[in-house]
Amino acid sequence: MFAKVCPSRGTLEHVTGRWGALTLGALHEGSLRFNELRRRVDGVSEKMLSQTLHALERDGLVHREAQPTNPPRVDYELTPLGHEVAGRLLALIQCVEGSMDAVLEARRRYDETRGAR
Amino acid sequence: MFAKVCPSRGTLEHVTGRWGALTLGALHEGSLRFNELRRRVDGVSEKMLSQTLHALERDGLVHREAQPTNPPRVDYELTPLGHEVAGRLLALIQCVEGSMDAVLEARRRYDETRGAR
Repeated sequence: MFAKVCPSRGTLEHVTGRWGALTLGALHEGSLRFNELRRRVDGVSEKMLSQTLHALERDGLVHREAQPTNPPRVDYELTPLGHEVAGRLLALIQCVEGSMDAVLEARRRYDETRGAR
Repeated sequence: MFAKVCPSRGTLEHVTGRWGALTLGALHEGSLRFNELRRRVDGVSEKMLSQTLHALERDGLVHREAQPTNPPRVDYELTPLGHEVAGRLLALIQCVEGSMDAVLEARRRYDETRGAR
C-alpha cells in the first residue's frame, strides 16, 4: 500500500474520505434511501453523495436496489464486504472520537508551545 | 461525527487522508527520520510530508524528537495514542487490501453493466 501504484489506495480513499466514511457509517446501521442518507450525512451535497455512492457501489461495498414502483424507490445497503470494511472503519472512528479529549489537549499544548517560540 | 461541526472530523481526516494514513502506517513499525519516512511513503513531497507530520503532531499522535547533535537529528515516532489509532487504521487497511480481488471483480462487473446500458 505504500507503493504509489497500488490499486488499494483508491479504495481506501473511497472508504476513508469524508463522505465515504460517513456514508458507510450510516449504512452500517441499515439500508437507507438517497434522501434519508443525505439528511444523515450532514453537509453533503446531492452531487457529492451521488458520486460517493457510485464509487462505493463500483468497489462492491454498497448495493443499490431499485424497486419497480411508481415513483421508483431506490434503497442503498452495504454488501457483506461493505459491512466488514465499515466495521473496521467504525472501530477506528470510535477510537478517534473516544480520544478527542486527549487530542484537543494535545492541540492546546502544541499551539501554546508554537506561540511561545 | 455525522454532524458538520464535530472536531473529530478533522482528526479523522488527518488520520485517514492519503499521506496521514501512510505516515501512521510507516511509524507504527518504529521511529523514523524525515528522509527515511519520505522514502517509505512513496510519492509524497517534502512539503506534504512536513504538513502531515505537523498535523499529526498537533493532534498528539506523533512525537517529534530533536537530538541536540550537529547536524541536528530529528526522529518521528508514534505516541501511545498514535499507536492505538494506527492499530485500528492498519486493521482497516489490511481488510481493504485483503479484499482487493473482490473489489477489482466488482469494478469489472460494474463497468460491464454500465457499458451495456
